Amino acid sequence: MSAPPSPNPLHGVEVLLFDVFGTVVDWRSSVTKELENLGKRYSLNDSPQDWLDFANEWRKGYMDNTRRIAEGGEGTNDVDIMHREILDTMLSSPRWSHIGEALTEEKARVELNLVWHRLDAWPDTLPGLHALKKHLIIATLSNGNVRLLVDMAKHAGLPWDAVFSSALWGVYKPNPLAYASALHHLSIVPNKEGTTKAAMVAAHLFDLRAAKKAGMRTVYVRRPGEDAGLSDEDRKRLSESGGGNIDGVDVVVSDFKELARLFGDSE
Amino acid sequence: MSAPPSPNPLHGVEVLLFDVFGTVVDWRSSVTKELENLGKRYSLNDSPQDWLDFANEWRKGYMDNTRRIAEGGEGTNDVDIMHREILDTMLSSPRWSHIGEALTEEKARVELNLVWHRLDAWPDTLPGLHALKKHLIIATLSNGNVRLLVDMAKHAGLPWDAVFSSALWGVYKPNPLAYASALHHLSIVPNKEGTTKAAMVAAHLFDLRAAKKAGMRTVYVRRPGEDAGLSDEDRKRLSESGGGNIDGVDVVVSDFKELARLFGDSE
Repeated sequence: MSAPPSPNPLHGVEVLLFDVFGTVVDWRSSVTKELENLGKRYSLNDSPQDWLDFANEWRKGYMDNTRRIAEGGEGTNDVDIMHREILDTMLSSPRWSHIGEALTEEKARVELNLVWHRLDAWPDTLPGLHALKKHLIIATLSNGNVRLLVDMAKHAGLPWDAVFSSALWGVYKPNPLAYASALHHLSIVPNKEGTTKAAMVAAHLFDLRAAKKAGMRTVYVRRPGEDAGLSDEDRKRLSESGGGNIDGVDVVVSDFKELARLFGDSE
Repeated sequence: MSAPPSPNPLHGVEVLLFDVFGTVVDWRSSVTKELENLGKRYSLNDSPQDWLDFANEWRKGYMDNTRRIAEGGEGTNDVDIMHREILDTMLSSPRWSHIGEALTEEKARVELNLVWHRLDAWPDTLPGLHALKKHLIIATLSNGNVRLLVDMAKHAGLPWDAVFSSALWGVYKPNPLAYASALHHLSIVPNKEGTTKAAMVAAHLFDLRAAKKAGMRTVYVRRPGEDAGLSDEDRKRLSESGGGNIDGVDVVVSDFKELARLFGDSE
């Protein structure tokens, strides 16, 4: 977007709630890089494509499980436990069992599982968040547990004003309780008129559409690889100029620096 | 304390949870200063002692109410609402009704009520927290609601890694659920052996004794005026050298810079 839309659909927003995995941090590169290092340490012969596949399979397990549980299914409310269950299943599968045979020590699996606490930010994340923090309250609203989000913030230098996890309310996004609870604790009154003082920022439409239903405003941020779950129609609409005609989305931005400019940051 | 106790009773601690009102911020001076300004704006003739009494009476209402509700009594779980109820009652009372008659506008009462979001830090708070944040996770565990704590952090520059309010769990400290829930979401396992990886920091013994019962380690910080609720026996013990013989307290410090030195900060 070359210029802010007029009138600015984020006028009056004082709180931004951020999805984290994929939106704030580049989980794919971060996890793949650690897996490659692991491969060297254990003298495994997997290729870069293998490690990328491993990261994608692990992440897909998480997405499938959180969505199922968000809709009322059975399962853990702690993503550390969920990530570990998926990891152990993968390490017993035909494709990855040679890695499972190398990683026999409990300590090594615990360490690998905590890679999700050590994800690196996208290049625009830190300048964008620091600029936004001057004008607004910036907080997470993630399916990661609180300790994961705090560890990640310290690792990547993310300057959150508050750290909300859907685990605080025993659910996963897109369960409506996650959005309603975060707004409640920030003393924000939601509405459907597009004047709510809080907006959700995410690289995933399912998250924004749930936030919109909960009475928030919404910002879609384009992130490489994060649109895998999009329908062809949504992908076509998002590729159109401005992107402002996507159902459930008030604003589309390319990165957090562009988002900061919508709040008057002139850097 | 001139030298760290040996062995250091905080060895292995990786999370510090801070009480806020009185421990991190000087509510008494902050509220009194705003009340004096209000008096000038409305041409009221109250003396500095009157304004101090007003602040103390407002605070006492909060302490009495939170303690009663923490023990299972009826009442709001939002301190903004509680502060306002106490304020309105005070402004109808014989001593303060002349102020109530001046403050007729809803907007003026809302603004005054939010003074609790604008409290200033004690002088050692910022250097202490910045030093501690290098080594540890530092988070609030306060009876203030989340928005109050976030507003205060932005006002006073408090660099929290996470903001926990007992309101997240529908209780007030010293209800055991507040301490247990904060530990759970930080993936900390409590125990009674003094090896828990989290410690509570507070200027009030009732808070530390509840934290100790919940399996945390505890740090008492001396803050002027905050020991009003102490028994004579506890006050005598605290005035003795070291203070390490107080039931429920592992360490006594004079301020947050001394606390940081216990974690190796040499500044």
